[in-house]
Amino acid sequence: MYYLGIDLGGTFIKAGVVDEKGGIIYKESFETEAEKGADHIAERIAFACLAAIRGAGLSAKDIEYIGVASPGTADSEKGIMIYCSSLPFLNYPLSKKIASLTGINDVYIENDANAAAKGESSHGRAKGYATSIMVTLGTGIGGGIIIGGKIYEGFNFAAAEIGHMVIDPQGPPCQCGRKGCWEKLASATSLIRMSREEMAKKPESLMWGLCGNDLSKVDAKTPFDASRLGDEAGAAVVEKFVFYLSLGLINLINLLQPEIITIGGGVSGEGEYLLEPVRKIVEKEQYSRYGDKKTLIVKAALGNDAGIIGAASLGL
Amino acid sequence: MYYLGIDLGGTFIKAGVVDEKGGIIYKESFETEAEKGADHIAERIAFACLAAIRGAGLSAKDIEYIGVASPGTADSEKGIMIYCSSLPFLNYPLSKKIASLTGINDVYIENDANAAAKGESSHGRAKGYATSIMVTLGTGIGGGIIIGGKIYEGFNFAAAEIGHMVIDPQGPPCQCGRKGCWEKLASATSLIRMSREEMAKKPESLMWGLCGNDLSKVDAKTPFDASRLGDEAGAAVVEKFVFYLSLGLINLINLLQPEIITIGGGVSGEGEYLLEPVRKIVEKEQYSRYGDKKTLIVKAALGNDAGIIGAASLGL
Repeated sequence: MYYLGIDLGGTFIKAGVVDEKGGIIYKESFETEAEKGADHIAERIAFACLAAIRGAGLSAKDIEYIGVASPGTADSEKGIMIYCSSLPFLNYPLSKKIASLTGINDVYIENDANAAAKGESSHGRAKGYATSIMVTLGTGIGGGIIIGGKIYEGFNFAAAEIGHMVIDPQGPPCQCGRKGCWEKLASATSLIRMSREEMAKKPESLMWGLCGNDLSKVDAKTPFDASRLGDEAGAAVVEKFVFYLSLGLINLINLLQPEIITIGGGVSGEGEYLLEPVRKIVEKEQYSRYGDKKTLIVKAALGNDAGIIGAASLGL
Repeated sequence: MYYLGIDLGGTFIKAGVVDEKGGIIYKESFETEAEKGADHIAERIAFACLAAIRGAGLSAKDIEYIGVASPGTADSEKGIMIYCSSLPFLNYPLSKKIASLTGINDVYIENDANAAAKGESSHGRAKGYATSIMVTLGTGIGGGIIIGGKIYEGFNFAAAEIGHMVIDPQGPPCQCGRKGCWEKLASATSLIRMSREEMAKKPESLMWGLCGNDLSKVDAKTPFDASRLGDEAGAAVVEKFVFYLSLGLINLINLLQPEIITIGGGVSGEGEYLLEPVRKIVEKEQYSRYGDKKTLIVKAALGNDAGIIGAASLGL
């Protein structure tokens, strides 16, 4: 049996046919054309589904269900997109539309960060652990909480907004209206901001050379690359980032004590150079220091396919 | 049928016989005598149980189970006290000891803040809500998370340390080793500290008169009483406290979206004078502003009996 996973984004719809082991046997990408409205997006998703099934050499009867990972808040029980800031959904019955357009009756929808966490739990690095949290370091910080193998959505499907945990009320303003949200201090975006601030103070930093003396070319890798080369300014940025990342992770651990936290998103590509110092701080500063059961902190496994695989695992 | 609830503290053991509706039909208090060691505490608890059963005019066969709410970390599955900073427990088989000393075989143990949350969920203000969080504002901030009617303990029984969520890395140092934990900014203790700081700056504040010009007599009620009388300095302390309390509550809501949060502990006695401004901030600043399902924030119902009733509800 196969599962169809849809990774819905503001620009592209990625569709993948996934097997029982979580392997993608076929995938294809289509433009979302979001400006044409909710019904059009539903049609584009249905088209992407049918094209991917055909591309995989299968037919609809081979597909157990369709799973859709979407930005925004999804009522996963009723299959309704409650709200989305990047797509024109407002209480939109997405599951029903896709089912009627494809003839495949079981259509699950879920917030994309939640779906990615479910993917890591079903087929990725958190497989075999009943409780896990996935933390995705990107433009913001996305998160998904898995309890007892299931996505924890809260009573209104809006839980796990881990990026909007304020960790410093004197911190940078966030579009959510508060100041010092975790994602303003420990996302890829904040890594870039902190690098630019440090570069402004340190004209001798190797970071300048690494980005061709062009501040607009600073990316989340810049301070890590510089730090590896022995650059003090780069190391200072990495240290500050590690501090804020650890701070939020310890908060999550003190609150929820998951068995494992998987770190995803581009910044997680830094691997042990990032995670080793994080683990040291977490080990030292977490509240529970007794007993031998401590939360594991690891790199997520699914990478760019997390959306498709996560969506395809929604019915498991 | 009746349930025996034990509220174990560093100084007193409170024992109560509780009926099926959560009403205490008899209660009595005994000294813990903690300095005499773990075995002695277990004996004191067993003695308190038997005395309370006798005092209620019942016999052991009328008691469905014994529940013990203890500070520290309890392995509720194995009935073992893993660790406690205020009592001499280290991997101590408390349930088994109490069972053998009382002849009552079913003995549940649980962290006291978790037990109080379970009590509010079973018999208090959170009754009828599947997901709830209890926040106890006392010397520190205690917390318990209820998901699907059950205590959420994390995989190592150490979850729900909500007071040790850092919300300001420039904040006061905490005995846990970090700075700016929520309980350093929004507990009764921090309310007293903030009052004293404000009084030092404002010799004209009514707070001075309310505590007989004696800084050691400032308590958590002082700034509230002053504020109600129109004192600017008192109002400034209350405003600051409301800010930090709301900040942590919004973090919890953004993460977990419980149906209801119950606020307990002495400070919750301020009632709507505290909760109304808190709700205004939470309503305005929580991340999820769409949909009509919002977390309720209310005063807890069980008051000083939360420990006994919570312990007595552990097996429900």
